[in-house]
Amino acid sequence: MTYRFASDVYRHRLDRARRLTADAGLDAILVSTGPDLRYLTGSRADTFERLTALVIPAVGDPRLVVARLELASVRDSAIADLGIEVAAWVDGEDPYALALSGLSGSVKVAVSDTMPALHVIPVAERVGATPSLATGVLRELRMIKDDSEIDALRRAGAAIDRVHARMGDWLRPGRTERAVADDIRTAILAEGHTEAAFIIVGSGPNGADPHHEFSDRVIEPDDIVVIDIGGPVDPGYNSDSTRTYCFAAPPAEVAEAYAALQEAQAAAVAAVRPGITAEAVDAVARDLLRGQGLADRFIHRTGHGIGLSVHEEPYIVSGNDVALRPGMAFSVEPGVYFDGAWGARIEDIVVVTDDGCESLNTRPHDLIVL
Amino acid sequence: MTYRFASDVYRHRLDRARRLTADAGLDAILVSTGPDLRYLTGSRADTFERLTALVIPAVGDPRLVVARLELASVRDSAIADLGIEVAAWVDGEDPYALALSGLSGSVKVAVSDTMPALHVIPVAERVGATPSLATGVLRELRMIKDDSEIDALRRAGAAIDRVHARMGDWLRPGRTERAVADDIRTAILAEGHTEAAFIIVGSGPNGADPHHEFSDRVIEPDDIVVIDIGGPVDPGYNSDSTRTYCFAAPPAEVAEAYAALQEAQAAAVAAVRPGITAEAVDAVARDLLRGQGLADRFIHRTGHGIGLSVHEEPYIVSGNDVALRPGMAFSVEPGVYFDGAWGARIEDIVVVTDDGCESLNTRPHDLIVL
Repeated sequence: MTYRFASDVYRHRLDRARRLTADAGLDAILVSTGPDLRYLTGSRADTFERLTALVIPAVGDPRLVVARLELASVRDSAIADLGIEVAAWVDGEDPYALALSGLSGSVKVAVSDTMPALHVIPVAERVGATPSLATGVLRELRMIKDDSEIDALRRAGAAIDRVHARMGDWLRPGRTERAVADDIRTAILAEGHTEAAFIIVGSGPNGADPHHEFSDRVIEPDDIVVIDIGGPVDPGYNSDSTRTYCFAAPPAEVAEAYAALQEAQAAAVAAVRPGITAEAVDAVARDLLRGQGLADRFIHRTGHGIGLSVHEEPYIVSGNDVALRPGMAFSVEPGVYFDGAWGARIEDIVVVTDDGCESLNTRPHDLIVL
Repeated sequence: MTYRFASDVYRHRLDRARRLTADAGLDAILVSTGPDLRYLTGSRADTFERLTALVIPAVGDPRLVVARLELASVRDSAIADLGIEVAAWVDGEDPYALALSGLSGSVKVAVSDTMPALHVIPVAERVGATPSLATGVLRELRMIKDDSEIDALRRAGAAIDRVHARMGDWLRPGRTERAVADDIRTAILAEGHTEAAFIIVGSGPNGADPHHEFSDRVIEPDDIVVIDIGGPVDPGYNSDSTRTYCFAAPPAEVAEAYAALQEAQAAAVAAVRPGITAEAVDAVARDLLRGQGLADRFIHRTGHGIGLSVHEEPYIVSGNDVALRPGMAFSVEPGVYFDGAWGARIEDIVVVTDDGCESLNTRPHDLIVL
């Protein structure tokens, strides 16, 4: 059962979620399938049109509402071990009434952020008001990783570093981005991930699109190539690391912009410590690039939290004034993008420690000449 | 560009969506990423925490709100061809204000059913009311397949039939469900699908769980095995077909229950014609199984619509009184499930015609002895 932690871990998380629900002045939170449900119960269920919801009331015990047909989807979770009541419904019954039963009067409920509108709207109708987001309650839990979670993130980081270390085996001029991506996928799995969640091979002009995946473009000898890869290791924690490669000494203007990027990334990592805000870390990278005339080339936030989701709180972005705390894990990944020509990005996952941070990715940060 | 239709197809759909939005008394619908957006624009974008929304106002032209970073995700769609205005936002800006700009006063908006709560709640806050579901508007469009869509579903049906036809190559006692599933996955792709969306190999007792996927269980000579498989063919339309297999003449009680199931499935298909309600088709299968004392063994709805989503409207279920119309496509898939012992299911996709239906799956419906 490596895909989840021991049941006591979930018992503890559920207790904390219940207390935070009460503290927030809510009567209950409704958690649909997705990373929040996995965090709270270990369940990897993934349903859409049939409501699955873990109901955590401020007072009383949690209950799981699930279609009888989907019962198997929660069998692997800690739900049975924890003795959580399972309220199963069959097609034709009203799962929303079931989810809200026992919550009388004008109830204040919040829903998890992945719950689709298909379910949010009927819940709103039943309670007579728009629910709020449970993100505030769950973020408090999920943002601060415990030792088991940090250990899983460390394993994920080491696994993706091993893939980057082998990049010279596959990344060569004359091959297509797709062929390289295929080799990377095999290596991501071979190095211990359960899935290749994303693979970006952005060669030459494709590197200027931060969310390019890969194409049939043939890689050229003078390309700069962005490789951004990752995926989950058991029990579900993700890696995410970017390095930028080339095949010969780069032209001066590339080397100069890259040096500025490398300095910005290192400075942002060095700024990470308890108490600094997420937006201040973003500003460190952004200000340094602005000082080099590259402000317009850095077109995305500096990073995102990571854990059971590849992207989660805390987001390292202007406007997010959350103060960093030990146990927070996120990416630091500034990039520079020159439309139609090339791009570069450097990305490490870091975990906030008592007096700074630990970087989970340790491959060289230079523009790597293969 | 086989992954989408010609741009005129989307122009026509968008025009109809705008008219239906006005007819519904709505000021606008907001369509986030997912099958609705693909239906309306051909876009396969898949974003979560950064809002992507196609805004279709009752009056005026549609607009696409998208993070500048995700612009590439809509590049393959018909959006540029159709001259749809793209309102790009960058991290730190308010995408909800952007989506609702130009809609003044107390606006009535509806959102697509896949929009996550993460975006539904901020939209509700901005407009001061819970949005409604755009499902009513979009269902009107998506439920009735046009000739191009039916052609795509036909190709998908023929492709999955070719996979079932080869089942004897892989499905044998002594192999694990997982090994069989691996071979099926390869065949699903080889026969023209772009992805193996789901594979159920439910052998023996695992067949009694309708949503079992596959396991390391070794298949035994006297097993009954449920094989439920499918995936999309370009431009995104899905197959979904179930047949039940065994390796020797089944015991009398299995043969008897299976005969009742086969009769129920055939009768439900025969009942499909314009004017009959979805729930009446469900009742045909259910009543026949009840007559054989199998009511408690049929624990799910009779079927689901299919198209760009594997599960979509119309659902063939008690309580759904929508009258069937030509062009509707859905599964007819009753099953019987004996906990701890075995299960069986027969599933065809059918398209409603002017005077009945066309079945897109034509493999034999018997309990197939390999």
